[in-house]
Amino acid sequence: MSNPTQKPSLENTQLKDIVAHAKEYGFVFPSSEIYDGLAAVYDYGPNGVELKNNLKQLWWRAMTQLNANVVGIDAAIFMHPLTWKASGHVDGFNDPLIDNLDSKKRYRADVLIEDKAAELAKQGDQAGADILLADMGRLLTAEDLAGVRQLIIDYKIMCPVSGTCNWTDVRQFNLMYSTQGSAVEGDAAQIYLRPETAQGIFVNFLNVQKSARMKVPFGIAQIGKAFRNEIVARQFIFRMREFEQMEMQFFIRPGTEMEWYNKWKETRHRWHQAVGLPTDKLRFHDHDKLAHYANAAVDIEYEFPFGFKEIEGIHSRTDFDLTQHQALSRKKQQYFDNDLDPETGKPYGNYVPYVVETSVGADRLFLATLCQAYTEETITEGEGEKEQTKTRTFLKLHPALAPVKAAIFPLVKKDGMPEKAQAIFEELRHDFRLLIEDKDAIGKRYTRQDLIGTPFCIVVDGQTMEDDTVTVRHRDSREQTRMPIAELRNYIGEAVSFRRIFEHL
Amino acid sequence: MSNPTQKPSLENTQLKDIVAHAKEYGFVFPSSEIYDGLAAVYDYGPNGVELKNNLKQLWWRAMTQLNANVVGIDAAIFMHPLTWKASGHVDGFNDPLIDNLDSKKRYRADVLIEDKAAELAKQGDQAGADILLADMGRLLTAEDLAGVRQLIIDYKIMCPVSGTCNWTDVRQFNLMYSTQGSAVEGDAAQIYLRPETAQGIFVNFLNVQKSARMKVPFGIAQIGKAFRNEIVARQFIFRMREFEQMEMQFFIRPGTEMEWYNKWKETRHRWHQAVGLPTDKLRFHDHDKLAHYANAAVDIEYEFPFGFKEIEGIHSRTDFDLTQHQALSRKKQQYFDNDLDPETGKPYGNYVPYVVETSVGADRLFLATLCQAYTEETITEGEGEKEQTKTRTFLKLHPALAPVKAAIFPLVKKDGMPEKAQAIFEELRHDFRLLIEDKDAIGKRYTRQDLIGTPFCIVVDGQTMEDDTVTVRHRDSREQTRMPIAELRNYIGEAVSFRRIFEHL
Repeated sequence: MSNPTQKPSLENTQLKDIVAHAKEYGFVFPSSEIYDGLAAVYDYGPNGVELKNNLKQLWWRAMTQLNANVVGIDAAIFMHPLTWKASGHVDGFNDPLIDNLDSKKRYRADVLIEDKAAELAKQGDQAGADILLADMGRLLTAEDLAGVRQLIIDYKIMCPVSGTCNWTDVRQFNLMYSTQGSAVEGDAAQIYLRPETAQGIFVNFLNVQKSARMKVPFGIAQIGKAFRNEIVARQFIFRMREFEQMEMQFFIRPGTEMEWYNKWKETRHRWHQAVGLPTDKLRFHDHDKLAHYANAAVDIEYEFPFGFKEIEGIHSRTDFDLTQHQALSRKKQQYFDNDLDPETGKPYGNYVPYVVETSVGADRLFLATLCQAYTEETITEGEGEKEQTKTRTFLKLHPALAPVKAAIFPLVKKDGMPEKAQAIFEELRHDFRLLIEDKDAIGKRYTRQDLIGTPFCIVVDGQTMEDDTVTVRHRDSREQTRMPIAELRNYIGEAVSFRRIFEHL
Repeated sequence: MSNPTQKPSLENTQLKDIVAHAKEYGFVFPSSEIYDGLAAVYDYGPNGVELKNNLKQLWWRAMTQLNANVVGIDAAIFMHPLTWKASGHVDGFNDPLIDNLDSKKRYRADVLIEDKAAELAKQGDQAGADILLADMGRLLTAEDLAGVRQLIIDYKIMCPVSGTCNWTDVRQFNLMYSTQGSAVEGDAAQIYLRPETAQGIFVNFLNVQKSARMKVPFGIAQIGKAFRNEIVARQFIFRMREFEQMEMQFFIRPGTEMEWYNKWKETRHRWHQAVGLPTDKLRFHDHDKLAHYANAAVDIEYEFPFGFKEIEGIHSRTDFDLTQHQALSRKKQQYFDNDLDPETGKPYGNYVPYVVETSVGADRLFLATLCQAYTEETITEGEGEKEQTKTRTFLKLHPALAPVKAAIFPLVKKDGMPEKAQAIFEELRHDFRLLIEDKDAIGKRYTRQDLIGTPFCIVVDGQTMEDDTVTVRHRDSREQTRMPIAELRNYIGEAVSFRRIFEHL
């Protein structure tokens, strides 16, 4: 047992390995799989839900516990429909879709054209690609959908399935799911499933500010589900129709937005590193094109097996949302700032606060964490003629994130060892999530725990029965140390504590 | 400061006091309030989300951490529509609705008739009431909706708003919300918002059993949102259109269901007491009429200000759900049981497991906890001529549930006290959610923390600057004790630890 050659996981890992591992070891299952699944919807299994909950709690506590000026809320998925009128989602949250009449397949028109431009560029015609993309941009901005269709026909863009150019018109398709309002007549007729969690924070701005007696600058954090009827939903749990966001809206005095934008950008970058994503797999990506509500925007991207992709966005949203809600609800969304303006010597007074948003995709963070943890190493076992080389796969999760903190193995199913293992379980279960494993050889049991990322395996053996010590086997190093049972709680407790992560923030 | 006369909270508390308190102190806000709200939907505020998260975590850990044979999942809200065909919800999850043509108000026909029966009983005509209810039961069972309408007309049941008897037909109205399936043609046309979380567990039964290598008997726990288009949605967050369930489905060998049903009934009853609901406010209520899938069912009820109502249901669901899914999906939902049947000496072999379900309404539990914690006591302050009596209101929450664990008060905003308070915050924030409060007199600050249930107030005073000790004021007794700053972490940690609750389970 020596010479581990540990390769950076992504070099030899494909997304399909992660997907297969996630299903086999109880992290992520396709939704309703017995009915052949539901496109772009997934369920979290026994290990997945624990990992995801640990990530969510780490984010929640880092926001609402470490910062005296950030509090949380949990707004409902259902909101008054005017919310989405104010936010611009009713009128502007569309994808241009087109159907092929032969294959009956539906596509995003802009994606078809972008794929064509990529093809041209690959063939060496970069100028042609640039012209095509510029034309598309112009037509989409002018909402000239007939022009977009004509572009597809002019460039002879074929359906990848039927191979024909027999296309319907291009239509704008709103990404919000809606449902019939209420059984009670006269209630709002149409309720949307929120396409983002942010608006639940904005409409509660004054309720939170007053009830929690917050002073600007302050933040409101929220974790919750959102829904988008995506036509291009792919890459496993990276883009789902039902997904979870971890968002904070930070309310500030107008004019101070760049200071807070930069501060939160750095704070969030640090957080991702503290929970286990290495610096060289993270990068910032500034937005070239800003959304209508933003005056600065950057993504924190992680290098997935399929390339660098966004896991979090930091946006300076100005006063766009609060001003829109103020106009539509006719309720003032203002804050009276008692602080003195050094220039005038008078209080800053009333204003609609500006907002800096930090928005993590919880499922994307989960996927990044899983990809990063997935490790294959070549190990050599035995000595001399019996020496053999094999590949060990394990999840190198931060112990604070691991679904199971320790697995307890009675070496054999007799001599009081199972009872001793049970007694250790009883002793520690109030503090940690544990497993007892009594099947198969010890090596096979270690392997199973490696595959779900359990940091510690506790073996109850003959010596345990004599002196109340156990061996603790460490997932990453495969080293074993002997320690008294009485020390286990503190030892494991230190390793899995959130405090160790918070100290790096 | 003596002679507190503490009254049982419900005697002098109305639901409206709780609703007002919940809004003013950041526990629960009406959804989208700036748009005048959305009927029967609510948002949790800064203190509400912490209290609710603490309750959810206590349940989750009690299930998946204390029991070696219970694991969790987190299934999506969206599921394949056949799921709801199998469960019976597509065909049978209806309310009989009727509209008054003058007021345009909609009612549940059965509720109108039940109200009429209650009126008859109140007037002394119990026999008449019984006949009316029996007639209705017969007609509803026969799905004779015209007959139900005729009953309303025969008994001259009027619309409470218009006062007329001008009614539409009675129609069955399905309580499931549905939305348009997918942007992708050919996908399932209609997706329901799940009306219960249980089915997310059933369709994942084999995925969980295999990936987590579970042996029957074992349980799968889940916390998640569900949606019902209720026409009678009332009593604050007791019955909402969007609500959260904490459910466990426990899979067992057929024939052992009563043993497990009774075990879980007792276990869950004990849990509610451990988190703060007293025995005399809890009762069991056996179901007279069993649902089509159940062979035994009991509710755990709590005495709300509006009477004893269900907070949790324990149901013996037989093999109904798995058998239905097996039939519709054509995928075997069986388990091979290696254990030996003592009668035959052979393994029990293949079977579809039976299920015992424990299902808590998370929002109802939250409301019960808030009602129980809401305490008014008469206290006497001052001495001699200055003696005066006043009412103190506070939330007597278990410290493990309290949204804020400790508030730190610098006695005055000078002499280094604010900096010392900040240093204590920095020292403890990795472990606990804390507040710093430096406004107003100390008494007023205590009152504010009482109102949100903060168990400890830490005062930094002149002596602190000399010897690094602080006073700790206790919410329930209002007593103050002096202790070194260095002891705070252990002192608070012991009081708020989940372990103290788990030890009672």
